[in-house]
Amino acid sequence: MRPLLFVTAAALLIGAAPAKKLMTPSDVVAGAPANAWKTIPADDLMVMDLAKGGRIVIQLAPAFAPVHVANIKALARGGYWDGATVYRVQDNYVAQWGLNESDRPWPTGVTPKPPAEYTRALKGLTITPLGSPDPYAPGAGFADGWPVAYNAKAGWADLVHCYGTVGVGRDLSPDTGTGGELYAVIGHGPRQLDRVIAIVGRVVEGIDRLSTLPRGTEALGFYKDKAQYVPIASIRLASEIPAAYRPSYEVMDTASATFARYLKIRANRHDDFYIRPAGGVDLCNVQVPVRKKA
Amino acid sequence: MRPLLFVTAAALLIGAAPAKKLMTPSDVVAGAPANAWKTIPADDLMVMDLAKGGRIVIQLAPAFAPVHVANIKALARGGYWDGATVYRVQDNYVAQWGLNESDRPWPTGVTPKPPAEYTRALKGLTITPLGSPDPYAPGAGFADGWPVAYNAKAGWADLVHCYGTVGVGRDLSPDTGTGGELYAVIGHGPRQLDRVIAIVGRVVEGIDRLSTLPRGTEALGFYKDKAQYVPIASIRLASEIPAAYRPSYEVMDTASATFARYLKIRANRHDDFYIRPAGGVDLCNVQVPVRKKA
Repeated sequence: MRPLLFVTAAALLIGAAPAKKLMTPSDVVAGAPANAWKTIPADDLMVMDLAKGGRIVIQLAPAFAPVHVANIKALARGGYWDGATVYRVQDNYVAQWGLNESDRPWPTGVTPKPPAEYTRALKGLTITPLGSPDPYAPGAGFADGWPVAYNAKAGWADLVHCYGTVGVGRDLSPDTGTGGELYAVIGHGPRQLDRVIAIVGRVVEGIDRLSTLPRGTEALGFYKDKAQYVPIASIRLASEIPAAYRPSYEVMDTASATFARYLKIRANRHDDFYIRPAGGVDLCNVQVPVRKKA
Repeated sequence: MRPLLFVTAAALLIGAAPAKKLMTPSDVVAGAPANAWKTIPADDLMVMDLAKGGRIVIQLAPAFAPVHVANIKALARGGYWDGATVYRVQDNYVAQWGLNESDRPWPTGVTPKPPAEYTRALKGLTITPLGSPDPYAPGAGFADGWPVAYNAKAGWADLVHCYGTVGVGRDLSPDTGTGGELYAVIGHGPRQLDRVIAIVGRVVEGIDRLSTLPRGTEALGFYKDKAQYVPIASIRLASEIPAAYRPSYEVMDTASATFARYLKIRANRHDDFYIRPAGGVDLCNVQVPVRKKA
């Protein structure tokens, strides 16, 4: 095998005008024009501060799970999670937090039994197709800054479980969970959970605060002793934080030409390290670029 | 949406004789007969002990990267990694270890410039097809206990990057790396690295010792200060350890009827929690069962 031959082949395979420099996905992100970015509304950002230090910022997805997200916002505004804990960390799966007990009353505005928001109407979404087959749905791509699966014939779309995805813990079906117990994916995207559980957002900063936590030794990664629980100081909406201290993030517009270029290069890495382009890509391996605003 | 209806639909969709109890993948593994398991040869097991405690056990794959694996065995036997460190931990990507410098001579038996063992001949492998589309190759499935991608027309097969996969760090192409610097995947399977880098095995125990390490803050997750390096006491082949202390593992035979059943249920979860079966599965979400022998 002669790797150098593949570099040449790769350069030829890109198709468009021959690149003078072989672009990486990071190059595309770095060179993205201002209009390729959209600011996340402060009311869709949730800030979780661990008691021992460390911040996790979550973008909520009201367009996909409106009742669950409304619940979560009501819980954050009501200070429901003050003193809650991360009580479950299962390797290559999820970190989960909440009260793990139901002895605190719901704040005002919480719907105790939300509908099963596991899919939404495809109509109304602008889809940028992935361009590669997906094992879990007839279609896969990006809409509104999110990775989605969809079924054009049946008319539904859904958010998917990738690294950093945040969903709503629940008991056995037909329970849908209220939103008081949430989890974030810290391993290979458990796509088998798609359309089985309500996805409400994704971690946009600080996922490593969760992914580096010690794994629980009980079944499903629950911590054995309460002493192992990781205390949460507070979870608030960014919109509740004074503007001067409020973190702000931008997500790449997945309908932009810049994102299309990013996606193409993600599926066809051809810079110096990559001896041949894959010609395809997994939905979860195309992380939608997010950046913190100064 | 009426979740309970989907439970019923799921039960009907399974196809085979109606199950009295809705089996989970774990149920299949727990009920696997003895002949569905194969013992990993002690000479293909590598035991990595961290200086501050914690063991990581790696199964090597000589049938896929024979020269690189022979190098790695020579390095282990020669005590090459005694005092080496984990010096790079990049979130949702890899943990990497080695000497990070080339001032120690290679032990006897190391081929300094191995060939690019990025694929092998498909011929000679018994493939159990995944049964779902794969974005990175025309074919995907399992062979000899390993997840593989393949191209029947071109006649090649390759190991793939899933959670826990171990590969050989290298510099820019056409360098192939010698085996002295290894990495393990600690995030969503970076399949874009398939056929770009030599895969030599997988972690069968203790991946959480790597996945919970603090992330490096330099570019690509390298630790900034040497004080952050995680020292390795030793890396040895299990065959070098006295039999009484030697760990031993079994891998499910991927050509067995039990594995076929396990695979089918992985693609069609239908127990109480799963309100509808996916009807498909990602290659990296079908982890080949491995268990420790008593």
